[in-house]
Amino acid sequence: MNNKEDSRRNFLKKLGATSALAITGTQLLGQSVESGLRPYSASENYIIPRENGLKITGTFLDEISHDIPHQNWGEREWDADFQHMKAIGIDTVIMIRSGYRKFITYPSAYLLKKGCYKPSVDTLELFLRLADKYGMKFYFGLYDSGNYWDTGDMKYEVEDNKYVIDEVWKNYGRRFKSFQGWYISGEISRKTKGAIGAFHTMGKQCKDVSNGLPTFISPWIDGKKAVEAASDSLTKNNAVSVQQHKEEWDEIFDGIHDVVDACAFQDGHIDYDELDAFFSVNKELAQKYHMECWTNAETFDRDMPIRFLPIKFDKLRLKLEAAKRAGYDKGITFEFSHFMSPQSSYPQAGHLYNRYREYFNI
Amino acid sequence: MNNKEDSRRNFLKKLGATSALAITGTQLLGQSVESGLRPYSASENYIIPRENGLKITGTFLDEISHDIPHQNWGEREWDADFQHMKAIGIDTVIMIRSGYRKFITYPSAYLLKKGCYKPSVDTLELFLRLADKYGMKFYFGLYDSGNYWDTGDMKYEVEDNKYVIDEVWKNYGRRFKSFQGWYISGEISRKTKGAIGAFHTMGKQCKDVSNGLPTFISPWIDGKKAVEAASDSLTKNNAVSVQQHKEEWDEIFDGIHDVVDACAFQDGHIDYDELDAFFSVNKELAQKYHMECWTNAETFDRDMPIRFLPIKFDKLRLKLEAAKRAGYDKGITFEFSHFMSPQSSYPQAGHLYNRYREYFNI
Amino acid sequence: MNNKEDSRRNFLKKLGATSALAITGTQLLGQSVESGLRPYSASENYIIPRENGLKITGTFLDEISHDIPHQNWGEREWDADFQHMKAIGIDTVIMIRSGYRKFITYPSAYLLKKGCYKPSVDTLELFLRLADKYGMKFYFGLYDSGNYWDTGDMKYEVEDNKYVIDEVWKNYGRRFKSFQGWYISGEISRKTKGAIGAFHTMGKQCKDVSNGLPTFISPWIDGKKAVEAASDSLTKNNAVSVQQHKEEWDEIFDGIHDVVDACAFQDGHIDYDELDAFFSVNKELAQKYHMECWTNAETFDRDMPIRFLPIKFDKLRLKLEAAKRAGYDKGITFEFSHFMSPQSSYPQAGHLYNRYREYFNI
Repeated sequence: MNNKEDSRRNFLKKLGATSALAITGTQLLGQSVESGLRPYSASENYIIPRENGLKITGTFLDEISHDIPHQNWGEREWDADFQHMKAIGIDTVIMIRSGYRKFITYPSAYLLKKGCYKPSVDTLELFLRLADKYGMKFYFGLYDSGNYWDTGDMKYEVEDNKYVIDEVWKNYGRRFKSFQGWYISGEISRKTKGAIGAFHTMGKQCKDVSNGLPTFISPWIDGKKAVEAASDSLTKNNAVSVQQHKEEWDEIFDGIHDVVDACAFQDGHIDYDELDAFFSVNKELAQKYHMECWTNAETFDRDMPIRFLPIKFDKLRLKLEAAKRAGYDKGITFEFSHFMSPQSSYPQAGHLYNRYREYFNI
Repeated sequence: MNNKEDSRRNFLKKLGATSALAITGTQLLGQSVESGLRPYSASENYIIPRENGLKITGTFLDEISHDIPHQNWGEREWDADFQHMKAIGIDTVIMIRSGYRKFITYPSAYLLKKGCYKPSVDTLELFLRLADKYGMKFYFGLYDSGNYWDTGDMKYEVEDNKYVIDEVWKNYGRRFKSFQGWYISGEISRKTKGAIGAFHTMGKQCKDVSNGLPTFISPWIDGKKAVEAASDSLTKNNAVSVQQHKEEWDEIFDGIHDVVDACAFQDGHIDYDELDAFFSVNKELAQKYHMECWTNAETFDRDMPIRFLPIKFDKLRLKLEAAKRAGYDKGITFEFSHFMSPQSSYPQAGHLYNRYREYFNI
Repeated sequence: MNNKEDSRRNFLKKLGATSALAITGTQLLGQSVESGLRPYSASENYIIPRENGLKITGTFLDEISHDIPHQNWGEREWDADFQHMKAIGIDTVIMIRSGYRKFITYPSAYLLKKGCYKPSVDTLELFLRLADKYGMKFYFGLYDSGNYWDTGDMKYEVEDNKYVIDEVWKNYGRRFKSFQGWYISGEISRKTKGAIGAFHTMGKQCKDVSNGLPTFISPWIDGKKAVEAASDSLTKNNAVSVQQHKEEWDEIFDGIHDVVDACAFQDGHIDYDELDAFFSVNKELAQKYHMECWTNAETFDRDMPIRFLPIKFDKLRLKLEAAKRAGYDKGITFEFSHFMSPQSSYPQAGHLYNRYREYFNI
């Protein structure tokens, strides 16, 4: 050990020793990783089996904020975040949408002509470059005009994405080896009319232009916590039953399975003791239609009046354990950078990262 | 001074000197404590008398989150937090509840059989171990099934806690010298039917099994700020009057004072200029029934649209001054770890910690 | 370079190199500034022209919190924040209000007699001292009794401020060279009756006592996002039209322009593609009445369920670009310390600071 290293260790040790220490635990813990120490107490007394859940190997990238405040990261922070992701085994990143209403992630000739605002930087190019750099698969999320949210009709999404898919494949898809799939970003539950036709049209176009790259969707279950983010309620009474859910999604999968390769239901709208019932139905349906069954393990907490901050680790664990029990094929999350990253603006996220690593012995 | 120390100081000094300094003030200030410097400017120009309020000597531990997002701390962070508490004179920690609905803090044979989820770690054991280590008194908060919140009837709480109290005393109470009391966690205001009987039954059982260890309650005053956390209002119109409050609590204290040793009214539901009126009644009633009169000095701010972040120091000061004027016996807070700790995920909490120390010259 | 510097750099470099790094990007970036490195990647690939917006050269100081939780800063943190402001070209600070209901910023003999709470420190004196120290202009925001919010009648504000203005000018205005203007803090939109008379009376008194120091107002446009902070809606339907806005403000400016020197409309209540329409009207009206046309560029995000966290940089950029296009005279913000400061409790603010510097090449 050289003197500088010694000095640094000494500095850290002193920080750790003070009782009035004001640097957060996460921050100190993160530092110790570099010198090969574990970021948590080896004596953590687990009373449940470790490594008993499905691992998270993919995350959405929430660059276009819908209801999660933006972190204002530059390239340096995004690069660091891809490293944090890779360190826990994330191999897939999904840009949740390439645009939302007038805000877009890349300078789309088509969308700019329609009145969208030109972004400061081409985030799509940035993400693809980083995915290339760190050897990850990148899924491109389609454009969300907001018209569906306003009108309940998905025809606008189909119309816009006809241009977006072509343009993106031509300008980015061929250039970056990490461009490995498509995320059909329309978020539906059971009730959506026209969704089957719209998903089929968009899924088919994605596959047609890209020589059959995989596609997936991430709908929500119309469960008891399916309430508006800005509403003053945390739950509702008219939640869907498992049986209804099965019937409706049987019909939807039947209509889209030839052009949609995987379905990653959001796992946060139902209660923890409903997970097994819904998950086994989801798996059964996916198998019936030869689709992959993924889970979108939400890392934010839907049960709190602040919407939204990082989830309590044990809640995440329960959901990942249920996904493993149901034999799910892959776990992704919405999303790493706000809710699970050591550099998140929410320090609870860094602690969640440490708890996650500890549980999975990473 | 050796070279390493010199180097560290130099490092800190440089950090302090830059105009674009991005490490928060709290963090720097915390570091300087260790080298014996005060964490704040000695020239802080107070225009009010210092040390003129009741000190906070107890805090709830909010491990089972009801409406405050979880911080995902491991043992290392909890150990550090107990040190932070001790440094400002906290000698009492109260686990706010041992479980809430299906989430529980310890592997209760009874509650697991009823369908509760097994926690990753035994937080009850952890807290007792830390309380032992730092010489603090630990109060155990009873189980909250949520049935009372749903039905208004406390009979379920009585039923469940019959088993919980026995089990906890047997498995933990005898093992840890820090196990020094019970917190009857049902949060009521004036309106609750059946509360007297329920509190009496639970308080009596706590005392009976533990050879008379002290018990306390922490109800809320049905004041103007007594609104739902997720509601879109900050105040309501039908607040209780001081006279009504006195009459109703006279009746309640009359029914429970033989098995409840202290009452710590939450101080956040009334306005700052109502503090003296309500506090003097509370003190009078406590004296009449030979109970201790504590204040639950809330360290979060009820007046803001984000529910909840740390309170402004001057608001806390007004409440602690009123508690001192009224001759209260002890000050506790809900709660240190989110709203007052230097390692809180809310950095405002660390600043509150510094302001508090400054005011009390700690 | 001496050894200590070497050691420190090495320490920072090591921190930067670890993949599990838990110190936020902002924090590292801030540190590197001092050694002359840019706080961001030089390769940031802008695809829009830089330095194409109006710079922010003023900020409100939100010491008396209305709906933004307090940060509990002491003098040390405030001093650092003034340095952060100055570093990006802020030359004007505006105390948003000298008091709100019973909470006040300075020991006003008049307001204390009316039942206001005495503050721990004289924040007015602190801000003036710091403005003097850093060569900034300080604007004093009038007292807000809250009566206007409750009753819709501004007569109470006029009555109270009659005393406040005199008292403040006498006790502070003459003592500090930074005391350079007045902010008439009543926040109105089109609908307010009696506002013209009230603003005229207060503006005139400010000028009369201070030998004509400048005054300004910062009203809101009654646009689609003009909803209550604690409400569960983000937008409303009955928004004002550009034509109505023009007619109503023509009348208001006509009545106040002889005693109000500038108007800084809040820019956050209208949509981004409405900016040009409203801004050109505002500029036209200001010119007609020989007033300065400022923008209050809000640095918090009105589109999110958490109210409020820092705004996404591109949203701020769109607003500053529109202000430049409209030929506005000055840009101020609500407000630097929570939403744009590297030491804010919201780390997104520090990242916004870095993005802002990058865009303006500061």
